[in-house]
Amino acid sequence: MPTQRLILIAGGDLRQYYLAQILAQTCTVYTTGLEKCSPAFSGELPPSQISSLPAPDYIILPVPAVSENQILNTPFSSERIPVKTVLACAGEHTVVLGGRMDADLLHMLNEYGLTAADYLKREELAVQNAAVTAEGAVCLAMEELPYTIDRTPVLVIGYGRIGRLLAKKLNALGAIVTVAARSLEARAWAQSEGSKACPIEALESTLPHFPLIFNTAPAEVLSESLLARVRRDCLIIDLASKPGGIDQLCARRLGLKTIWALSLPGKTAPYTAAQIIADTIENIDTERRRAYGAE
Amino acid sequence: MPTQRLILIAGGDLRQYYLAQILAQTCTVYTTGLEKCSPAFSGELPPSQISSLPAPDYIILPVPAVSENQILNTPFSSERIPVKTVLACAGEHTVVLGGRMDADLLHMLNEYGLTAADYLKREELAVQNAAVTAEGAVCLAMEELPYTIDRTPVLVIGYGRIGRLLAKKLNALGAIVTVAARSLEARAWAQSEGSKACPIEALESTLPHFPLIFNTAPAEVLSESLLARVRRDCLIIDLASKPGGIDQLCARRLGLKTIWALSLPGKTAPYTAAQIIADTIENIDTERRRAYGAE
Amino acid sequence: MPTQRLILIAGGDLRQYYLAQILAQTCTVYTTGLEKCSPAFSGELPPSQISSLPAPDYIILPVPAVSENQILNTPFSSERIPVKTVLACAGEHTVVLGGRMDADLLHMLNEYGLTAADYLKREELAVQNAAVTAEGAVCLAMEELPYTIDRTPVLVIGYGRIGRLLAKKLNALGAIVTVAARSLEARAWAQSEGSKACPIEALESTLPHFPLIFNTAPAEVLSESLLARVRRDCLIIDLASKPGGIDQLCARRLGLKTIWALSLPGKTAPYTAAQIIADTIENIDTERRRAYGAE
Amino acid sequence: MPTQRLILIAGGDLRQYYLAQILAQTCTVYTTGLEKCSPAFSGELPPSQISSLPAPDYIILPVPAVSENQILNTPFSSERIPVKTVLACAGEHTVVLGGRMDADLLHMLNEYGLTAADYLKREELAVQNAAVTAEGAVCLAMEELPYTIDRTPVLVIGYGRIGRLLAKKLNALGAIVTVAARSLEARAWAQSEGSKACPIEALESTLPHFPLIFNTAPAEVLSESLLARVRRDCLIIDLASKPGGIDQLCARRLGLKTIWALSLPGKTAPYTAAQIIADTIENIDTERRRAYGAE
Repeated sequence: MPTQRLILIAGGDLRQYYLAQILAQTCTVYTTGLEKCSPAFSGELPPSQISSLPAPDYIILPVPAVSENQILNTPFSSERIPVKTVLACAGEHTVVLGGRMDADLLHMLNEYGLTAADYLKREELAVQNAAVTAEGAVCLAMEELPYTIDRTPVLVIGYGRIGRLLAKKLNALGAIVTVAARSLEARAWAQSEGSKACPIEALESTLPHFPLIFNTAPAEVLSESLLARVRRDCLIIDLASKPGGIDQLCARRLGLKTIWALSLPGKTAPYTAAQIIADTIENIDTERRRAYGAE
Repeated sequence: MPTQRLILIAGGDLRQYYLAQILAQTCTVYTTGLEKCSPAFSGELPPSQISSLPAPDYIILPVPAVSENQILNTPFSSERIPVKTVLACAGEHTVVLGGRMDADLLHMLNEYGLTAADYLKREELAVQNAAVTAEGAVCLAMEELPYTIDRTPVLVIGYGRIGRLLAKKLNALGAIVTVAARSLEARAWAQSEGSKACPIEALESTLPHFPLIFNTAPAEVLSESLLARVRRDCLIIDLASKPGGIDQLCARRLGLKTIWALSLPGKTAPYTAAQIIADTIENIDTERRRAYGAE
Repeated sequence: MPTQRLILIAGGDLRQYYLAQILAQTCTVYTTGLEKCSPAFSGELPPSQISSLPAPDYIILPVPAVSENQILNTPFSSERIPVKTVLACAGEHTVVLGGRMDADLLHMLNEYGLTAADYLKREELAVQNAAVTAEGAVCLAMEELPYTIDRTPVLVIGYGRIGRLLAKKLNALGAIVTVAARSLEARAWAQSEGSKACPIEALESTLPHFPLIFNTAPAEVLSESLLARVRRDCLIIDLASKPGGIDQLCARRLGLKTIWALSLPGKTAPYTAAQIIADTIENIDTERRRAYGAE
Repeated sequence: MPTQRLILIAGGDLRQYYLAQILAQTCTVYTTGLEKCSPAFSGELPPSQISSLPAPDYIILPVPAVSENQILNTPFSSERIPVKTVLACAGEHTVVLGGRMDADLLHMLNEYGLTAADYLKREELAVQNAAVTAEGAVCLAMEELPYTIDRTPVLVIGYGRIGRLLAKKLNALGAIVTVAARSLEARAWAQSEGSKACPIEALESTLPHFPLIFNTAPAEVLSESLLARVRRDCLIIDLASKPGGIDQLCARRLGLKTIWALSLPGKTAPYTAAQIIADTIENIDTERRRAYGAE
């Protein structure tokens, strides 16, 4: 990134804290709303001083960017910072980057005449975050199980980004991996990449073999009738966002141990997650410079 | 596949010969145009006897199905068999399966009122064929090089089906793999799956490091100016079909060793290639039975 | 194991608890000194009832077998059980198996005329325990680091059982592994198995590159002068037993984060550790039957 | 290696030819008995000119060094060169390196007062040669089989250097590997490194499952009674030197396809084999300099 870039990072968790450190290697970086991180970042400013900053090239918001009423998401701050306070320093060319920005926020940015981009929607970030999620999920299973991953039969439901990278890591650690996927193509990939494959419809008969199940499919795959087939000592880790892939109520009733592991990258490897965001911002910046002929 | 299936395999190479043996484990199978394979398949018939067969459930044609004038592609036969001769036994419900069936052939099948399907276009077959191609390509490189794959810097251009599976196998054998790909997403995948990644635009500066280059991209990536940057002792294996990805004339002028390795599955692992076709036919049959409610 | 075997498991931790469950699938098993494990093992007996048991084929003691004064090692019991109490049921053919049995204990067993064997000294158990230790060490690093293992430069000191299996797992997870070892042979193995290798003497110059270091060498390799070369944010995990391989005092003075991870198998994967002991007991039993021609 | 080293390479195959090129990057190198290699090495001398060379630091003989009557092993020369001709240039400090030097040769060198060392006996060379052999063996199987290695059940007999590295490569390529080994320890290693394991005694019942068998054990494991259990279409590759591990006569009688693959490194990857010898010579030189305090 050109070294003259001025960047304001507002709110967020350890990812934003590490992101500030990474970007500060080549840019001028200020932060706000991260004052509880220790040791404090050298460019941390109280919200009241934001308006006196020169217009930054980028304002970087967290994931999700805001909570209700457009208050910045600041788990590492004791202050309640309206996003407007942050935007006070924005200039004509300032670009606002954030993750999961809601309609109200996008509307407000539009009214301010500011360009916005959601870095969570970038494919290269999604793939790399999936790799971090997969490693975090492996770690979670290791912690929870009295078995090793090595030589344990494991079921992975779904073969999208996370399923694929998770299966790879489990195989690499010696697990005996079966991938359950709907399409023939996904199953062909799973088999060509070292796993066994089974159709979702065949789950009923194969489920009892697994002491460890990961779900990565966004729809509810493990319904009541399927959960009834799972071993009592099985650990089920659900990596699907939104509604999740498991009937949680039913799982509890059956006494099954389930973990719904959301947002693993920020929790298990915030530095790597920050590096991925930094690389993505660099990509966004490169594309913008190319598009505008500037260098 | 239901055991009562009657199948006629007409023409083709070792893949069709092995396919006959595999399908004969569960179906009644006849072949024609494979009489030079040894030992002869028990159900081999001269073309003249085809018309007296009962109507088969499937007639399986090779890849490509026909040469010009609709003559069956029969490298293992001394006979010249018009495809019409084969269709003489077809009945109302006969399905004709083939690979790379040209417009004239499809037109003819349509006139006969026959259902046709191109198994080469099935995604699950394409993925598994890519795995066979990748292994064949690795073998080719081992044969040609005075080095081991182990610890050798290798460049893989493209990260589609073949590129991905090839990079996986090369990494597994200890190569130091760099993937050159156009999109940020493809490069993120390559990095998450154990390779280094470089943009196509950066090839010029990295090319001189590689004693072994595989091209899997369908477009011409290695143009004259790039080929000029390649080591004189480099081996270039082009796995791209159709026009290929290398300026062959220029490569020859520069004294570079290039191999254009087409149709590897049938050459290096015909039995596995046959098994993949058998599985795909099974999938086609299952889908048809489901669609028609028949069993 | 012949199903008529009678086994008494006395003392120990979760490994012995799981061991009882595993052996109970084929033998008659009693336990004592495990009453705090939940749910209680069905064959758990108070120490006072041991003397009325028929003579068992095997009495299995934990690791280490006893604390001072020949009191059984019973972290999951509130009772203080002299090992003599356990031996009260021993008969002429009873074999006593234990781990790290001290000279006094061996002397006592000898006086009782009992055959003793240390299962910790069995090579097949040592190898498999090393695999469990390696996986546990990987999990520990994942938990502690804000990075992923994937793409992180890692130094593994030593290439014995644990070093070798640890390097394998780290490589499999995408780490960039360097093995530091004294002998040319060990370094050749490391390189042939996918790692980089460096001589111990070259550590001084390479140490600053690593944010993660595992020591598996039994002697002190990381002395003061070397520790001074380590990155301030480096995590050092010492897997060496006995004196360990790190000058702990010095590391603390330098503010380096070190973890001395002892006895990982029992902590991170007690069920797998129990299965390994069960397999080893089975091997011991098979060898004894062969030696004595009994069946 | 100190750049002032003078080296004479006498006889040998492509390995010695490439060795000359590698060593010539840092030393002064002459060759003799390699005149048929193309393009000719710049320092190639006719045998008649050897005696006028200054005393070299090292004279490097091939593997094996001599044929009967102490004639140099020179497959790439039309001349018959007595080893005495080569030694004519030796001085007091010249060290003679060779592989598989017989008693007569060692006796002669002793009479000349020359220090000799067998580089084939170096552990680091043995390990790295095993890696090359393993890769060559994989390539051989790929060439011969109509199957892919991927997903094929493969038996590896023996878990020494070659067996271990071969099993690793086969597993990496997706094979389903079973290792047959005598000791519990070797089987524990095989299992911990991703293979299944079976005792040699259990071979009789498992042999019929494998279409591909590698023998790496030096003793005859596959005797007549075991060979009778092997599939008719099985490929057996014997990598054991000396007597080999297969009853060849019996295998032929049974119509089994066997390949006795000796000296693979020189055949399949002579450049890598040469690099390994170069590294070993460097190690020998370093040790000698240390021992003599010279630098």
